Amino acid sequence: MRAVVFDGEVRVAEVPMPVVGPGEALIRVLTAGICATDLELMKGYMDFKGIPGHEFVGVVKQSSNPHLQDKRVVGEINCVCHRCQYCQLEMPHHCMARTVLGIQNRNGAFAEYITLPEENLYLVPNSIRDDVAAFTEPVAAAFRIPERLHITQDDRIIVLGDGKLGQLCAQVLWLHSKRLVCVGKYPQKLALLKDLHINIAYKDDPIERGADIVVEATASPDGLKRALELVRPEGTVVLKTTLAAPTPMDLSEPVVNEVRIIGSRCGPFRPALEALAMGNVEVRPMISEAYELSDGVRALQRAAEKGVMKVLLHV
Amino acid sequence: MRAVVFDGEVRVAEVPMPVVGPGEALIRVLTAGICATDLELMKGYMDFKGIPGHEFVGVVKQSSNPHLQDKRVVGEINCVCHRCQYCQLEMPHHCMARTVLGIQNRNGAFAEYITLPEENLYLVPNSIRDDVAAFTEPVAAAFRIPERLHITQDDRIIVLGDGKLGQLCAQVLWLHSKRLVCVGKYPQKLALLKDLHINIAYKDDPIERGADIVVEATASPDGLKRALELVRPEGTVVLKTTLAAPTPMDLSEPVVNEVRIIGSRCGPFRPALEALAMGNVEVRPMISEAYELSDGVRALQRAAEKGVMKVLLHV
Repeated sequence: MRAVVFDGEVRVAEVPMPVVGPGEALIRVLTAGICATDLELMKGYMDFKGIPGHEFVGVVKQSSNPHLQDKRVVGEINCVCHRCQYCQLEMPHHCMARTVLGIQNRNGAFAEYITLPEENLYLVPNSIRDDVAAFTEPVAAAFRIPERLHITQDDRIIVLGDGKLGQLCAQVLWLHSKRLVCVGKYPQKLALLKDLHINIAYKDDPIERGADIVVEATASPDGLKRALELVRPEGTVVLKTTLAAPTPMDLSEPVVNEVRIIGSRCGPFRPALEALAMGNVEVRPMISEAYELSDGVRALQRAAEKGVMKVLLHV
Repeated sequence: MRAVVFDGEVRVAEVPMPVVGPGEALIRVLTAGICATDLELMKGYMDFKGIPGHEFVGVVKQSSNPHLQDKRVVGEINCVCHRCQYCQLEMPHHCMARTVLGIQNRNGAFAEYITLPEENLYLVPNSIRDDVAAFTEPVAAAFRIPERLHITQDDRIIVLGDGKLGQLCAQVLWLHSKRLVCVGKYPQKLALLKDLHINIAYKDDPIERGADIVVEATASPDGLKRALELVRPEGTVVLKTTLAAPTPMDLSEPVVNEVRIIGSRCGPFRPALEALAMGNVEVRPMISEAYELSDGVRALQRAAEKGVMKVLLHV
């Protein structure tokens, strides 16, 4: 089969078909999305080698479960052991033996075929078209925030970052509180949120401090510093950025202000699919471009350029 | 009156008596304790100028409240406005207009006399002698941890740091869970905890990862990194160290492990006094030396030396 392969350099190559393990399904990928994490992997994050890609929609081609066969699916990316202490403690996505689709010891979705455990798969309703379904994983990541934090309509929320993840976080948190502003720097990106009637600001605008919750999704080393300036004492900073480089941090600030900093990663697929089906989260305007899999290298280069939002691969 | 004064350099000097404001009491300091924060102030932390010192026990010499007059007291160090948004939200120690005894816009306790709002004062029972009562403020800071975190006897806790604050945190958290180990590097310091039958380890010992709670009290720039290695996914790191210097931090680690990092500062005086009165927290062995106020400069130098625990000033 054809796939995008990374081994220090990126190229499109013919590779062997994946081997279907016990409890796994073979999936023909239809559409895959390029994520900032993919671009970090190409810079050395996680020491990843193999086929990247963890945002996808596909069709099940081989499965022992008749309810899945030939169905359109999306899939949770953490493949877990069910035996280690974290699986036992019902924190499966922290499984110590996990593989992660296109991120850790498991080939990903920038390929014609992938395998995933059947338990990871969710049927995609017909009302959600491929280009939208490919966003399920990042939308789920945004839904992780209200899963970990109790958010009320009175909470004042600042989302830092107008990129893909920042916008999805802003849209999801907007469902919880209208006292929200998304802070960015690209007029054409912020315009997408404005079209959804979500409050926006430019990073150099004066922004009222003392927010209850600040979401750091800038993918910039300065983001945490800015978040700590804007959050109120005993407030919460949610870290969404995964950066390959260490960030200098003034630790006395969170200590004196008794701030809570919460890391947040993968999230629940069900509310993400529901929001996409209901149109409560609008992702189509975020699609900048789509490429064929054979143009995967160019697609990754394009996704890394400033001002570009989601780049899709049609497989 | 005589006081230790810092204006870029430390010296003992004759200074004017403090002016007693409305609602305030005048207190004759009996004993004051030197804290790591005092040593950080001398390095430029908080841009402090004036009389340092925020750990004290004293006698009320002038007060409109007859229940306080001539009584032995300790005092909360944050002096607040009762009007700003954080006071209204019942977070007075984050008051935006606050002064902080010996730390921020208020002269401190390395002096013959101080003033504090009467509402800040707590009577000290006769059973607690001066040298012990002077520890109330740092013991209260340790009690801030169970005030912010729900801790059960099943929680596995690692306290990093065998200094004064680390030891007090270990003693206080030991009251909540015996699945605790305090990690340090000074045999003579760790011996104090061993005498209290609290589990100890040396920093180069193999330490089981996956703790539910890690308290960072090393006062070292490496402390947070180590804490993030030792805490379990979705576990909690409590930051106790206030350092003048920024710390490099790999942000991807707390994001992937979804760790919660909580800053923690001043704490409740009542449980601290109760623990000292009941002997549930044992501070006397932590006293390395005591100096007269006139030897304040030497006392501060001594407190900064490696291996030294609490240095007291007898005023």
